[in-house]
Amino acid sequence: MTGMTVGFVGLGAMGQGMGASLLRAGHRLLVWNRSPEPVAALVAQGADAAGRLADVFAAETVVSMLADDHAVEQLLDPALLADAKAAVHLNMATVSIALAERAEALHSEHGIGYVAAPVLGRPQVAAAGELNILAAGDETALTKVAPLLSAMGGHTWHFGTRPSHANAAKISANFLIACAIESMAEACSLAESHGVRPTDLVEMLSGTLFPGPIYSGYGAMVAERRYEPAGFRVPLGLKDVNLALTGGAAANVPLPFGSVLRDAFLDALAHGDGDKDWAAVAAVARRRAGLPA
Amino acid sequence: MTGMTVGFVGLGAMGQGMGASLLRAGHRLLVWNRSPEPVAALVAQGADAAGRLADVFAAETVVSMLADDHAVEQLLDPALLADAKAAVHLNMATVSIALAERAEALHSEHGIGYVAAPVLGRPQVAAAGELNILAAGDETALTKVAPLLSAMGGHTWHFGTRPSHANAAKISANFLIACAIESMAEACSLAESHGVRPTDLVEMLSGTLFPGPIYSGYGAMVAERRYEPAGFRVPLGLKDVNLALTGGAAANVPLPFGSVLRDAFLDALAHGDGDKDWAAVAAVARRRAGLPA
Amino acid sequence: MTGMTVGFVGLGAMGQGMGASLLRAGHRLLVWNRSPEPVAALVAQGADAAGRLADVFAAETVVSMLADDHAVEQLLDPALLADAKAAVHLNMATVSIALAERAEALHSEHGIGYVAAPVLGRPQVAAAGELNILAAGDETALTKVAPLLSAMGGHTWHFGTRPSHANAAKISANFLIACAIESMAEACSLAESHGVRPTDLVEMLSGTLFPGPIYSGYGAMVAERRYEPAGFRVPLGLKDVNLALTGGAAANVPLPFGSVLRDAFLDALAHGDGDKDWAAVAAVARRRAGLPA
Amino acid sequence: MTGMTVGFVGLGAMGQGMGASLLRAGHRLLVWNRSPEPVAALVAQGADAAGRLADVFAAETVVSMLADDHAVEQLLDPALLADAKAAVHLNMATVSIALAERAEALHSEHGIGYVAAPVLGRPQVAAAGELNILAAGDETALTKVAPLLSAMGGHTWHFGTRPSHANAAKISANFLIACAIESMAEACSLAESHGVRPTDLVEMLSGTLFPGPIYSGYGAMVAERRYEPAGFRVPLGLKDVNLALTGGAAANVPLPFGSVLRDAFLDALAHGDGDKDWAAVAAVARRRAGLPA
Repeated sequence: MTGMTVGFVGLGAMGQGMGASLLRAGHRLLVWNRSPEPVAALVAQGADAAGRLADVFAAETVVSMLADDHAVEQLLDPALLADAKAAVHLNMATVSIALAERAEALHSEHGIGYVAAPVLGRPQVAAAGELNILAAGDETALTKVAPLLSAMGGHTWHFGTRPSHANAAKISANFLIACAIESMAEACSLAESHGVRPTDLVEMLSGTLFPGPIYSGYGAMVAERRYEPAGFRVPLGLKDVNLALTGGAAANVPLPFGSVLRDAFLDALAHGDGDKDWAAVAAVARRRAGLPA
Repeated sequence: MTGMTVGFVGLGAMGQGMGASLLRAGHRLLVWNRSPEPVAALVAQGADAAGRLADVFAAETVVSMLADDHAVEQLLDPALLADAKAAVHLNMATVSIALAERAEALHSEHGIGYVAAPVLGRPQVAAAGELNILAAGDETALTKVAPLLSAMGGHTWHFGTRPSHANAAKISANFLIACAIESMAEACSLAESHGVRPTDLVEMLSGTLFPGPIYSGYGAMVAERRYEPAGFRVPLGLKDVNLALTGGAAANVPLPFGSVLRDAFLDALAHGDGDKDWAAVAAVARRRAGLPA
Repeated sequence: MTGMTVGFVGLGAMGQGMGASLLRAGHRLLVWNRSPEPVAALVAQGADAAGRLADVFAAETVVSMLADDHAVEQLLDPALLADAKAAVHLNMATVSIALAERAEALHSEHGIGYVAAPVLGRPQVAAAGELNILAAGDETALTKVAPLLSAMGGHTWHFGTRPSHANAAKISANFLIACAIESMAEACSLAESHGVRPTDLVEMLSGTLFPGPIYSGYGAMVAERRYEPAGFRVPLGLKDVNLALTGGAAANVPLPFGSVLRDAFLDALAHGDGDKDWAAVAAVARRRAGLPA
Repeated sequence: MTGMTVGFVGLGAMGQGMGASLLRAGHRLLVWNRSPEPVAALVAQGADAAGRLADVFAAETVVSMLADDHAVEQLLDPALLADAKAAVHLNMATVSIALAERAEALHSEHGIGYVAAPVLGRPQVAAAGELNILAAGDETALTKVAPLLSAMGGHTWHFGTRPSHANAAKISANFLIACAIESMAEACSLAESHGVRPTDLVEMLSGTLFPGPIYSGYGAMVAERRYEPAGFRVPLGLKDVNLALTGGAAANVPLPFGSVLRDAFLDALAHGDGDKDWAAVAAVARRRAGLPA
């Protein structure tokens, strides 16, 4: 395999590791980022720095890993897409279903393939090239970017030919994490109020019914009331819950757990926990029950 | 080890396997059950049949595995306990925290040790002696029944010296299962309404964030809308959610997810799903969204 | 009209005024109460004191106005009813639907008419004989007690021949009051957080869409954060919300607003507001939003 | 008083009546509407038709009564405001708090007074000039438009100098209506499931605790399951609930009743009730309980 030329946009903690994985796999990287520091880090690993965002879209493929819908909007500029040479844009951000649908149509108008491939995994996993990738898009485009997905991910889960399906799956996954945190928060408050040590409860749960990183990792944070340092902050959690609720509203799907979550995250923000990990919804559950913070 | 003489009350699907495990481990069993058929089955494996419930309480230890608070009430008859010779009563049923507290006090009055040891696991697991047991009680009593717990369970999780703590832990565990089912029901409705196949979603989830029996097992049932045959029926699910809510109310602990669950289970019952598995709350989520049953 | 002989049980703040109204209308009263002081007060107005509860049931009709299901249980003693001479028992307490159904059957067994007639109104309204009465029972029994209802109430609203229907109506009315309080609590928190003075909001609302005692009275308490003195305490509010939820559960009727209310009342109790007026659920709404208490 | 010259934008059912009220009071009207028919109707009553939207903003004052935020956006065009001669813009639409804040700032930049004055009342009330008006804005601007408010309204309720406060009050009022409908929907389902006729319940409630147009009017619709013709359709109800939820989210104010309402309105839409009156959330409550539609 001879590597591809890849334009890469968005060098946050995740994008850094993903870009490095692409370089290690032998691809040429032309990177662009709003702030310059992360660019230098990747250039030191062999990437080239793009002068303008538009330069990135001159590459064979474009990979973007931006923070949210708002940040991705800049890539949906018709002028940018009209001049683009890229065959495929591989958007790995967690964005709304509505944006994914709009992006698919817009890229199609300009003859550019569009693949949605949001990921599961933390920055270290991204750096190791071991992400779980949730991918959807038309087959030609997917085939084109398959080597890139292999370089960045340990496994790719396929959700069909419509890009928005991958985003819906990712939004559902994050929704389930939020549900699991709130569930444990309520269970720990209940158990503690009747004398059970929450750490004992979580140890039993993750040793029996609920193995895996979410229940053990967030379970420990909830049980120990350890909401800092934040792996994923409360406002980001609220953003993701809102992606689920908005997606639900668009299809008339009520999500009562989602509604409870939204209220809990607002409560957390109202009490100044905006810089804490989203496990801090457990502090809301405790406050409702009058348990010490 | 020479086995103990064990009085055993409650030969439902779980009790059958637990009794058989005790026999295999070399204990002598004196069994009593409301209906006679299950007694015969264990007698065939070497147990003796008790003529009256009171005879069971003449044994060195008593193990009970009854359906709910109502069924356990018969064991809390002061006359029965006054005549009992048993040193310890090992109650393995899923009962309310309030009943556990009352039972502890009552047994103490009559000089009988009381250990609460509800279990996680299905009948096959009980038959194999591989249950996860959640145990609490004073140390003397726990030491006394330790060989019985070893015979019935693969692992015992300890929750301290107050029996009700084990019940609170068990109620919390069942609450978390119910939360996980509803979470997946909502996520699958959301995903399906945007074109994702629920089975694809569940496969990805249980292959990544949520391994383990609950998300994969119930996830498949939710995704495939397969609510029969019932492993655990809707009314039992509602009973367990109510144990959590009642336990919460006793300590002024609001459980908003629990409130949503209660409403969903009532909705399922209102639509005639009382004989289906509690995974049928997914049918409620689908109905809310106007998705086909 | 020559008055009736009326046995009267339950001389709380409401019962006092109702008893006095009956005396004013020319009925003879034989009163019984757990504590003696209220008896003396009515005897001073012309009532006779009953030596035992059973004596009251020797009267032509019995009126009872007790606090809750638990207190009413003592009147459902089969021995008491077997000896009773009363033609009709007029139970004016706010009790559960289930208790009403059981009481109807039990009285019927003993050949005693049973009329349920819970009331709307505060003690002063009871003293003035101007209560709104919600009545149901068979026609013969209702005709018998009609003069008593006229003496105690300004208006009687009829809900048919099954006593429990009047209790269901009363429970629904109290449920609506709780809903109105929570609605205003949320609206005032919303408005205040955007700079509106809650008192301005409530004045407008009760001057336009929502006239009447509930929105203006509780609205003012919510807007002014005035939860004392308590007209109706938080635990009583929770009791009534639970009557609605339990009634709903018995018929598989989910009440999502009821579930929110239950959680809010528990939250109020968890924060030590058990002696405050149930308008104190507004403090829960404010706390959720981080607004000053 | 000699009348003012008033530019008027937005001749829906409400705007028609409001424009007519202004004409009757002796003001000169220059009207503009997206569709021509309503213009003709007011011209027949003495108004002049504006050729362009910009012409309306040449009048001494501008009154606008548009459907929602989206429709009002066209009036927030900086070019339009830069050319405007109007001293005050009186915006009577129900719009978001955020839009009101933005509109206030934008008008201020262009030296135009901005008064928010959303209204309570149906089209007939608008035609009679008897609306309840919720007004806020700086005093000079309010004084200027006072004669217009007098012409259109029976009473003006003042919410201070910041226009958004009037919008927050209006959003709160509509939120309370939605809460009242859901409350009655739940109460009627509960009562009916226990044999009470919902019409009897509503008659009692509106004759006692809950007089006024909302409980009697919507109560009758709920009790009679009469959701057509629609006075205010389900999607508009959802829009207004979302205005409350969005306003709440902006200030970190959880609104659990609002969350339940949102889910109920989505459920109604999912079942094809988008053209029915928002009282049709009662059909959702009935469906949850398995009661016949």
